[in-house]
Amino acid sequence: MTPDLATLRALDARDPLASKRGEFLIPGGVTYLDGNSLGVLPARVPERVEKVVREEWGQDLIRSWNTHGWINLPARVGARIARLIGADADEVVAADSTSVNLFKVLAAAIHVSAGRDPKRRVILADEGNFPTDLYIAQGLAGLVGEARAEVRLVSTDAIADAVTDDTAVVMLTQVDYRTGERHHLREMTRHVHERGALIIWDLAHSAGAFPVDLNGAGADFAVGCGYKYLNGGPGAPAFLYVARRHQPHAPNVLSGWMGHASPFEFTSRYTGASGIRQYQTGTPSILALSALDAALEVFEDVDLAQLRDKSLSLTRTFIDLMGPLCARHGFRLVTPEDDERRGSQVSYAHPHGYEVMQALIAAGVIGDFRAPDLLRFGFTPLYTSHEDVWHAVQTLDIIMREGRWQDARYAERNAVT
Amino acid sequence: MTPDLATLRALDARDPLASKRGEFLIPGGVTYLDGNSLGVLPARVPERVEKVVREEWGQDLIRSWNTHGWINLPARVGARIARLIGADADEVVAADSTSVNLFKVLAAAIHVSAGRDPKRRVILADEGNFPTDLYIAQGLAGLVGEARAEVRLVSTDAIADAVTDDTAVVMLTQVDYRTGERHHLREMTRHVHERGALIIWDLAHSAGAFPVDLNGAGADFAVGCGYKYLNGGPGAPAFLYVARRHQPHAPNVLSGWMGHASPFEFTSRYTGASGIRQYQTGTPSILALSALDAALEVFEDVDLAQLRDKSLSLTRTFIDLMGPLCARHGFRLVTPEDDERRGSQVSYAHPHGYEVMQALIAAGVIGDFRAPDLLRFGFTPLYTSHEDVWHAVQTLDIIMREGRWQDARYAERNAVT
Repeated sequence: MTPDLATLRALDARDPLASKRGEFLIPGGVTYLDGNSLGVLPARVPERVEKVVREEWGQDLIRSWNTHGWINLPARVGARIARLIGADADEVVAADSTSVNLFKVLAAAIHVSAGRDPKRRVILADEGNFPTDLYIAQGLAGLVGEARAEVRLVSTDAIADAVTDDTAVVMLTQVDYRTGERHHLREMTRHVHERGALIIWDLAHSAGAFPVDLNGAGADFAVGCGYKYLNGGPGAPAFLYVARRHQPHAPNVLSGWMGHASPFEFTSRYTGASGIRQYQTGTPSILALSALDAALEVFEDVDLAQLRDKSLSLTRTFIDLMGPLCARHGFRLVTPEDDERRGSQVSYAHPHGYEVMQALIAAGVIGDFRAPDLLRFGFTPLYTSHEDVWHAVQTLDIIMREGRWQDARYAERNAVT
Repeated sequence: MTPDLATLRALDARDPLASKRGEFLIPGGVTYLDGNSLGVLPARVPERVEKVVREEWGQDLIRSWNTHGWINLPARVGARIARLIGADADEVVAADSTSVNLFKVLAAAIHVSAGRDPKRRVILADEGNFPTDLYIAQGLAGLVGEARAEVRLVSTDAIADAVTDDTAVVMLTQVDYRTGERHHLREMTRHVHERGALIIWDLAHSAGAFPVDLNGAGADFAVGCGYKYLNGGPGAPAFLYVARRHQPHAPNVLSGWMGHASPFEFTSRYTGASGIRQYQTGTPSILALSALDAALEVFEDVDLAQLRDKSLSLTRTFIDLMGPLCARHGFRLVTPEDDERRGSQVSYAHPHGYEVMQALIAAGVIGDFRAPDLLRFGFTPLYTSHEDVWHAVQTLDIIMREGRWQDARYAERNAVT
């Protein structure tokens, strides 16, 4: 059943998050359904960045580490993220990239696991996990050697059964970056724990898209991304979570001075700070962290249940509107229709997916493409309306009806897809 | 022999780099001698950052990875730095923090060394090296285990003799962060190579302060900092150098997707890019990299021999002017007087060093303090004049004569010193 435009406008009219759209600078002529790749610029960010550059750096210079609290910025930003992912403020820190943070928590998890049972040496991962997660695991396993770690990749469906008595840690991204399928975080965590292993959640496509309850699930470790649903800007600092119970026994192998118990005593021997601060490494970019900090202010008064409700309404609307296009133009839905199993993204396979997406982008509707044949559409509840969804599907229908995607220029491959 | 103000003004009047000062936004009422900790804001940075935030991110959004070349920014910034350190453009990349980059090149060096001679397993370092370097080495050695790596710390003077047939890699910072003493980069590199080991240079206090000639010296690996003499802003991205001859055999253990041969094919198996790009890890901050990129434009027309000449003239002037204060107020010079052995920084020990520096900062002359008793003064040739040096010493003399440093508020310890 496909909703009509009047119905969708009525949904927008009573959307409790509607006013949030005004807190973002959305370019004219663009319908942006790629917030799962790079979030839109929050209106308060440019001002904050300018203040940090001109005043804090430019005027106050080195003194700002104290007077503007730069030294505590990773923890302050971490605390803002903690609320969004069901963690306590002292369990999350903003630092480095997701890849680097994953290396830290994976090494920490292996250390904790080996302390319990040295026979457990398998890092179990979904073969469809976001590649950088797999690459980092391979890099770490290669470094420590097969006697201590081995990466085992299985299909998404086979993960649960593959947790055996040689599994040290399971590494999963809660929402699959291609299909938008969402794992049951609580159930999977319990299952992995019952089988004696630890779990690392990658929340790249979760944080800021819907509420996550890490502590409610008893999760061990997590990482996530600052530039997708958190809107922190291109390559924004990432975050990591270490459950408080693990912190005293889970050292950071990327032991840089910012994680030292007393960095300004300049001792020659590393002693990690107690608590979450130990997972910092080098000096963080204050510009990048400040942009993320300002972006996170947008979430301060957001009810996360409303966020999830709106996200589901948007993705459900999109799936409903796309129904006729699937039959007519050969799109195949690869995202679960069951609300519980869906993140805030919907993907379709199409044999000419790349060209279709290029034509759609040229028409002002921005999604993205993932090899080999997926069109991805992300729905950011804070700045996307039901009418946007309507407009996107209408545009796609026109492009397909007119065969516009067959224009040769849409077949040219970009460096980044 | 202490120069008088007229002589110093004459030096400034014929300084070929004098016009560079106008390319920086130096706060009023401040004499800034802490560019070795955080460089001053280059005038072109705020505009560039605003453009990146409002136009590239805000308007063009995800498309900027292609249209604004974000994907190549780490290599472009690396190429700018390469000229300053005597490397080729394809041997340097900007990425992550110095600490994280050191982890990468140290792991790579151990790998290369083990391939030549597995008996070599010692990471030899100066016990006075900047702590984060030592901490990172300890973290890596702890992770791979003592059969493969052991950190051995010796005093600066003992380094050369300590390179033995169990040494895998020597890790040195070219300019000591406390004393400002400069190692002979070429001679030490040759010495270490003659004894069969590899060398990693930390150029944190070198890059942008004076010309470095890594390739002329036949160096193996290097890392360095973007926020000191390169003026890239607080916590700016760092850089790393891998000599071209090592690149095919020196894998990056922090193997994230940005270092993959084909990151957008999303394969599950890591295959490193050929060349310097393989040493990238996660998605870099485009805001932070762009600020550093704009800051490096200032160096484009700078003659590095002139940079060194001016640096030596400034530090020599400071040492000469400080002569009478040493006798009068108990300062003790810890920086070599021999030009060849001095970086662009001069340090003095004083029993009340912390309080004296706080009083000096309160009077508008900004240096910094390093435990236990060192006052550090950095001289950035691009924006520091000989008259600044004169003013700094006059102010310090007044503070000491008036005993101002004894004010109780200057004894209060800041979080960052």
